[in-house]
Order: sequence, then structure tokens, then C-alpha cells
Amino acid sequence: MLWTRTLIPTMKETPEGAEIPSHVLMLRAGMVNQVMAGAYSYLPLGLRALKKAERIVREEMDAAGAVELAMPAMSARGLWEQTGRVDAFGNVLVQLTLNRAGRKVPVVLGPTHEEIVTDLVSRQINSYRQMPITLYQITTKFRNEERPRFGVLRTSEFLMKDAYSFNTSVESLGETYDAMYEAYCRIFTRCGLNFLPVEAESGPIGGNASHEFMIPAPNGEDAVLHCRACGYAANQEKAEIGARDGTPPADVPQKPLTKIPTPGAHTIEQVSAFLKCKPHKLIKTLIYMADGAPIAVLVRGDHDANEGKIRRARGAEQLELASPEVIEKVTGAPIGFAGPVGMKETIPILADRDVQQMANAVTGANEDEAHLVGVNPTRDFTTDLFADLRNAVDGDPCPRCSRKLALRHAIEVGHVFKLGTKYTEALGAKFLDADEQLHPIIMGCYGIGVNRIIAGLVETSCDKDGIVWPMALAPYEVLLTLVKVPDEASMKVAMELHDQLTAAGVDVLLDDRECRAGVKFKDGDLIGIPLRVVIGERGLKESKLEIKWRWDKDAEKIDLDRAAETLIELVRTERRGAARFLNR
Amino acid sequence: MLWTRTLIPTMKETPEGAEIPSHVLMLRAGMVNQVMAGAYSYLPLGLRALKKAERIVREEMDAAGAVELAMPAMSARGLWEQTGRVDAFGNVLVQLTLNRAGRKVPVVLGPTHEEIVTDLVSRQINSYRQMPITLYQITTKFRNEERPRFGVLRTSEFLMKDAYSFNTSVESLGETYDAMYEAYCRIFTRCGLNFLPVEAESGPIGGNASHEFMIPAPNGEDAVLHCRACGYAANQEKAEIGARDGTPPADVPQKPLTKIPTPGAHTIEQVSAFLKCKPHKLIKTLIYMADGAPIAVLVRGDHDANEGKIRRARGAEQLELASPEVIEKVTGAPIGFAGPVGMKETIPILADRDVQQMANAVTGANEDEAHLVGVNPTRDFTTDLFADLRNAVDGDPCPRCSRKLALRHAIEVGHVFKLGTKYTEALGAKFLDADEQLHPIIMGCYGIGVNRIIAGLVETSCDKDGIVWPMALAPYEVLLTLVKVPDEASMKVAMELHDQLTAAGVDVLLDDRECRAGVKFKDGDLIGIPLRVVIGERGLKESKLEIKWRWDKDAEKIDLDRAAETLIELVRTERRGAARFLNR
Repeated sequence: MLWTRTLIPTMKETPEGAEIPSHVLMLRAGMVNQVMAGAYSYLPLGLRALKKAERIVREEMDAAGAVELAMPAMSARGLWEQTGRVDAFGNVLVQLTLNRAGRKVPVVLGPTHEEIVTDLVSRQINSYRQMPITLYQITTKFRNEERPRFGVLRTSEFLMKDAYSFNTSVESLGETYDAMYEAYCRIFTRCGLNFLPVEAESGPIGGNASHEFMIPAPNGEDAVLHCRACGYAANQEKAEIGARDGTPPADVPQKPLTKIPTPGAHTIEQVSAFLKCKPHKLIKTLIYMADGAPIAVLVRGDHDANEGKIRRARGAEQLELASPEVIEKVTGAPIGFAGPVGMKETIPILADRDVQQMANAVTGANEDEAHLVGVNPTRDFTTDLFADLRNAVDGDPCPRCSRKLALRHAIEVGHVFKLGTKYTEALGAKFLDADEQLHPIIMGCYGIGVNRIIAGLVETSCDKDGIVWPMALAPYEVLLTLVKVPDEASMKVAMELHDQLTAAGVDVLLDDRECRAGVKFKDGDLIGIPLRVVIGERGLKESKLEIKWRWDKDAEKIDLDRAAETLIELVRTERRGAARFLNR
Repeated sequence: MLWTRTLIPTMKETPEGAEIPSHVLMLRAGMVNQVMAGAYSYLPLGLRALKKAERIVREEMDAAGAVELAMPAMSARGLWEQTGRVDAFGNVLVQLTLNRAGRKVPVVLGPTHEEIVTDLVSRQINSYRQMPITLYQITTKFRNEERPRFGVLRTSEFLMKDAYSFNTSVESLGETYDAMYEAYCRIFTRCGLNFLPVEAESGPIGGNASHEFMIPAPNGEDAVLHCRACGYAANQEKAEIGARDGTPPADVPQKPLTKIPTPGAHTIEQVSAFLKCKPHKLIKTLIYMADGAPIAVLVRGDHDANEGKIRRARGAEQLELASPEVIEKVTGAPIGFAGPVGMKETIPILADRDVQQMANAVTGANEDEAHLVGVNPTRDFTTDLFADLRNAVDGDPCPRCSRKLALRHAIEVGHVFKLGTKYTEALGAKFLDADEQLHPIIMGCYGIGVNRIIAGLVETSCDKDGIVWPMALAPYEVLLTLVKVPDEASMKVAMELHDQLTAAGVDVLLDDRECRAGVKFKDGDLIGIPLRVVIGERGLKESKLEIKWRWDKDAEKIDLDRAAETLIELVRTERRGAARFLNR
């Protein structure tokens, strides 16, 4: 492709509103163009990279035995009401109304396709002989983002590979799940991504039933706890915390319990400012409804409660924060003044292990505008259970090897999940087993954000000059840069090379613009094509071409008369070098 | 691919609500599955065919120098208000509202992308040096169909290839237009479609500036006039009519003009029934507003007025049917009783040439509940102009060679159109020429309905047993049918062949289902794979395999020991045989 025949609108300046590297560079390299907040056009360069990622995903899904289909974006809202997901998605669900010959038809634009694929399967699959089967598609999904941002990382419309497996047993689901997990590892490795599979909150199947695939990146919106020593990795929602010292410090004398008026201070920040103490000296008391009954949960003031852990510790199915009315009734005080000492009603009290080792802490006094100081667990209140009830933080002990967990920010690019029978039961997708018995089909789901593969790569593979593409995703593999235009001799050499490489299946871009060579070199670095070939008068005189890898500092020279063979060989070798690219 | 590992839910019965062959067969062959009225899932077999069509379109667009990009479905409604297309599309435009952090954002789902691409170009292209350029995409489009029908032929969501060219002159646009026209011919030929490019109504550029690509089919929703003698073809809106005899018959005595009460009869059908005469004995009088002033247009009762022809004959920019108030004011009678004799006001009267040769006709009397009989043009009323003002019908003379035009129904699969500067002027897309002068960019647009390639092929290439695919679009090229399952010997032969053919790049489907051979043969004919290979115990004993082309009556035998080579060679030859497929 000649640069002048396509559309690569590079920019020198950082575009307004773009903050993180991937957003800045994808705009500056002319890969994408914003149509509205949360919706981007992929320009030729961006689309070529996206299509390469899509192709790798498709090849590996096919190789793993998944079967491709394509479901429409539109479906009737009624289907989503049957599974309760109109409410569950809330504002995220994009809805519209079609006007059909005098009838209004409420429609949902799919944010994902569990309902549609299960509805299909409920009609077309009814025997154990037709399973296991994994159906997948690579199609546009729609989600209403309250605040779309970070370029193509978070948009209202995006390309997603979503796969759904249908199995007759939990064991069979396990096999499919493992096959998908392996396929995901191959996909992200081939894409040249430094990725980390992390444990994630699992659904009804329980156990080791959900993983997210993360790209560690300082600007990532997700938080991951990672133990570099033993390799344990989990997202913040799921990460367990290793053994913690459960005894209060013996050398700290216990102060007397004292009530202090704290007018207007009800948040942790307000109380610590008012009492001039650090948040970790406070005990936060949260009132939850666990399967409809109130419980109190205590965590240290600088920690965040983890609802999954609380739910499991309590053995509850449902857990939600109590309403202000319930809090007032149970504690005797309005929100912000609850505490474990002297509550109005006797309810179960669960405390995080870190609360166990606190001494002379601060809590709410269960009355308006007052707190207690000198609060000591055991002496001043009793708890029903000490357990791991909070989100892990940087430096917490690893649950496997007890060494330190590191908190890392990351971009989620994939998720595999054992769904169980939630959708198949709601939509009546059943099968007959070999004994003619009816059972609900057991499902798994497996998603990849294809745009995020591209944005995640750019975010983590760039330098001050621009993007550094691996061969696998590079919009073009070779960039032929003409030093002087017009110049008949170099144009002739360039076109010959262009045609020879193209004929050999190499993706070539020829920069034939009439502009200074310096501009071309800068643009070449910006768009990040792996192998740059400079074609200039000086080199031609010596029958040499200068070549340079985007990630190398130095250029080298190759013979002009064998240039095509040399370049083709270099490209083929580098294509197999995904691992080397990652470790460079 | 093994049949048991994919999802091909064939059906024996004609599904309810499906009327035309493509709809019936795509459902019966398990290619598609309806999600809601106007939205279909493409199941594995359907998606494979669709992807093959998409690939052919992409290859030919690339070969013609067009550059691919991908624009989002969503865009801000404001952009569409700038070009007036919110009103122009009316109910066809799918609209929704996004809820963004307390703000409502009105959004349009693109039915096509002129606004978005022109907005992009207005920002990224500003010099004559950047043109000509043709940008295209193959993406999902959304249109609210009042009555979606005919399966995937008319849906609310469909895959469209839309291309937009940007040129600096009308001559350059002409070159791009011709290149696109040629690319379209190659695409439809490669797809094995019997297609007909027809002239269509052109926009502001005028001249030979619009063509539609039609697949003649009895169930097609479009009407085309075609002269088999000279090749002239145009859609009904555009088709001209050759010279017609403009003199009234000399041998018919003129009857006296007589008024007859016709209570309750105001349509052509009612009047002809009431007066017991054929519709072609009536003169239909239509009152139009041409650039704001009323005119009367006369056509024979069995003909339809053609507004494009009327507009051009009158030299008017705008033309619309007059309101009931204007009709009553101008004619002195309510709708249904207008006539050219004794109108209340003197307005221009234009008559179609066929009216010129009528004698003793029937017209409205310009008074309520009355008609005139024995009306004779010239004697009873004068006209300002006789011209071609009606839609051509079957049997009309060809405008080129005067032989007979045939009316054919057809499915529109493509459209090329010289747009001019409508969008670039509305959205400020201008360029500087070599003399630094600003001009609006000149546009063309070029669309292909990718789903219609598939539906159009099925509609026109099928027999009583099912679909007959050409190699180019066939979901699989070869079907290996196992006569007996389980049978180790035949399964071994089949798997070896399957793997050898797959390794050679041939798309193979192996029917390994445990069911009667008869069912497999019927399903094989239904899904229409071009080359069927039967693997059975009897053949294996003789070291022979039976092969049969889907479109041939008879099977033949090939040697088992050279089967892979033979089949690969047959497939490769047939792949080059698009023309032969069409002429079989």
C-alpha cells in the first residue's frame, strides 16, 4: 500500500482530552477517530491491527473446537426480562423502540448474548448427543457507559468475542473451561501481550470457576493482587489474604472506654480529622442484610469490606447494605454513628481479622453525633466470628506462600466463567440424557474484548516516539521509507520491493509522500511498524539499503540485490518470535 | 468439520410464515434462526456463506484501490440534523437515547454512513493531493422496517458494504464510478449471481449517474424494465418509454360529451365497475404542486404517473401531490372527481402520450359524484404538453431500439451513485486545489447488501430438493457422506480424506451422524454443498468412492487410492468455473 493512497492522518501534538498512552498514540498515529463520546471510527491503520487480533482470536477458537455463528445486536426486551437482566444491567443496557406498522416494539441492543444463544439452544439442542458444543461470535456489543473514557478502552460500542459452551455435566464443563483457558493463553501470547490470568469471583458453580485475563498497566482500571514469589494472582474482589496475627498487642495498655461528642463527623475521613487520629485507628461498622436479616460487619477504617467474603463467611445467598431505616432501628443511631458497643438490638457481629488486633480504637457510639474512643475488642464487645472480610491491599500476605502480595493496576482483556444453569433454567434449555431423563444444560461463557487487545498492546508497548508493534498485530510488517520524492531511481527500487514483498504475503507500506525525510522517520516511529527500510540515493549508490527494527537502537545495512529475499526471511523469522518480542 | 461437532439444525417441514424459496430454504437448511421479527442469527452454515461473500466483496474493493475502515453504528443525532436526514429518513431511522452521567444524549444508529464519513473527511482531508480516495467498510446497518419480511432479505439490521469516494472533479468522480461499477460486476460474477445492472434515477450530478445491480427473481420487490434485444435495462422509476403513436384512432367516431352521476365512485376501480368499462378507457387526473404552483397531470386509468418524469417535463425542482384543499379549490370538486374539462381555475395541463390517442374516454366532471363520458382530447380540452409521464409497463417500446420491454421482478443487491456535493457542502468538507482555491469535495457512494448476495443466490439457485451453491459461496465445498455409522473402516477413510482435503485448503464437511443414509442424502441436497462424496461399505470393497455434483443428475465413481488428489483437482477447477456455474 502506498501512504498517499490510504488515510493515515498522523498528529504531532497530543490531542485534547487524551491522557493515557494508548489513547494519545492511537489518535496521533491516525488509527482511530472519535465520532462521539464513546464511539470511534477505526481508520485504515487501526482497522488492520484490529482485524489481525480478530483473526488470531478466530483461529484459536476454531482450533479449540468452538463453532462460529453471528447473533444480531437487536433482540426483544421480553427475553431479557425472563432472566431478570433488564434490572441487573440497569442503565448499562441500551434500549430502543422500533415503530412497526402501528406497533411499538421494545428492543435491547445486546451487551452480551447469553439470552439469545440460550434461546437458540433451547430450540435446537435437546439431546446429550448434540453436546458438548461451544458457540462463539465476534460481533459488536453495546453498553451505555456513564463516562466513556480512555479512548477505545471504554466505549459504548465495541467488538467482543463471546463464546458460550453447553455441556451435560460439570466435569464436561470443566474440560471445555480448561480448553478455553488454554486457547486464551495462546491468543494473548500470539498477540505479544504480557498478560496475567487471575482468579476472579466465581458464580454458582463455585470452586476455581472464573478467571480474568489481565494486562498489567499503570493506567488500568482494574486492581489485581499478585504474588511474584509463588505466582498467585487474583482480582481485588476475589483475592484472599494470608494468615494474619489475630492477637491484640500485649504491650499497649487498654484505655478506658469514653464517649466523645463528634458533631457533623460521620465519615471515616471526618471522624479521623475531628479526633486527629489515623483512619486505621477506627473501626468501621457496616450493617448488611444477609438473606433478609441484619448483621454487623467490622473492618478497620482504612480497609474496604468485601461483600463476597462476607456472604461466604455468613453462608448467605443474598447480601446488600441495609437501608437507613434498618440501621437506625438496629443501632439506635443514624448512618455514620453505628458501633459494636451497645447496639439497640442484638444482631450477629462479624469482624475482619485485622480488627482482632486493634487496641484503643474509635467506633460510633450508636447515638447521633457521638463516637467512642478507647474501644477494645473482647473487653468492650463480643464478636460472633473473626474472618477475612475485606479487600486485599498492597503488602498483604499471600494466601498461598505468605510472602507479600503486590497490588497492580491492569486492563481486563478476557474473562472465562462457569455459568451453571442460571440461563438454561430461566429459558427452558433442557436436554435428554442417555436414560431419557430431562436436565437443564450446563453453561460456561468466555469473553474477549478485541479492541482492548489493541489498546492494551499500545498502552504497554510504546516508547517516547510512538507505538512498538509486534509482528502479529502490526498494521503493516514492513515500512519502506523513500528519502527523496520525487526521485525516479528510488521509486523504482521501492515499487519493485513493495511488489515482491506483497507477492510473498508480507504487509508493506510505502511512504511515498512528498515531504522531508525527517517527518517520515518520525511518523514511522509513531505508527510503530516493526521493520523499517530506508531507500535513499546514498544507499543506492553503494547498492545497500538501511534497515532498522522499531525496537532496536541501531540500523544495519543489507545488500540491495538480495533485499527482497533478506526482508522476507527476516519477517518470517520475526513472525515466529512472539515470545522473543515479549522478552526483549 | 464433523457434522456432529457443529450446529446444522435442518428441518423437513416448511417453517411457518416463510413464503419465498430463500426464506424457506435458509431456515430449513439451518443457515439462519429468527431472533425477533427483522433480526436473524446466522448459524454456522449461514455465517460461512456470508463470510465468503464478504471476502469476495473485500478482495474486489481492495483490488479497485478502495481503502477499508470501520465506522461505529452510533453517532450523535445532531450530525444528521445538519444534512436534513433525520426528517428524510423519518421512521426508518433507528434512534435511541444514552444516559450519560446525568445527561441525555440523542443517538442515531447508522442506516448508512454519509454523514459520519463526510465529517471524518472534513477534518482529515483538505488538499487535492489527498484525493481521489475511496473509503469503504463492511459493517452492520440499522433500519426500522415497518414490515420486515422475506427472511434476511428485509431486516432491521443487516451487513452492508458501503463505500464513499472523494474526488476533486466530476471527471475524476466518473473514473471512480466506473471503477466501482466494474468491481461490482466482478463481485457478482464471482458470487455466481445472474445479475443485471440497471439505470436508476440520478441525483444532482445528472446524466448516467446511478445504477442498481439487480438479481432477477419472481419474488423480488423491485421492478425492472429490460430489453432483451438491445440490453437496455432500468428500474421502473427511471425506465423511459420509446416512441408511441400520438394520434387518436381515425376510425372511431367521437361520441358527444355527457355528464353521468357516479355516486360513491371515486377510484379508478370503482368508476370502471360502475360504468362497466375497462380502466384503460379512463383518464386519471392528478393535481400536483410543482415548485409551489398547481398543475394537472393526465395519465391513462391503467397507468401510474412517474413523478421524476413529471418533474423533468415541467422543469420543476420540487413536486408533490396537492392537498385535498388545493384540489377542491382548483378543480371545484373533492378528490376523485377531477378532470381536464371545465376546471375551476386555469392551470397547466400535462398529459402522457397515451392520453393523446384516447377516444371517448371517461374523466371526472369536476363536481361531486359525477363523471364525464365521451371525452375526446383536443376537442374537449387542451393540454400544454404531451410527454412521457408514466411508469413503463411490460410490453412498452424500448427507448433505444423500439422493440418490446419486459417487466421483470428483481432483488436489489447493489447501488452505485454520483452524490455530488450534497453532504460535503452541508458538513463543510472542502479542499484546496493546486491554486489554493477552496471547493467542496465531490462525492460518490456505492453500496452492496451482503446478506442479499446470499439470499439472492439461494432464491435463484435452488431446486425442489434444496439449495444449489456455487463453489465461491458454498459453506463447504465438499460433503463426505458416511453411509453407515458407526463403521470403523469407512470412518477411517473419511477422516483421512477430511484431513487431506482440509490440509489442501478445501472446505470439507463430514456427515458422521448416526442416522439413516437417506436422511443424510436429503440433508446434503437441502444444504446444497457442491460436491458430495459417498463413503460406504460396498464402494470400499471395490476401492471406489461415489461422487456427485449437486447440479448433476448422475453420480460417478473415482478410485479410492487417488481420491484426495482427484477431489482437490475437481474443487480447484470448479472454483474457477463461476461462469460455467451460471450457464449450466
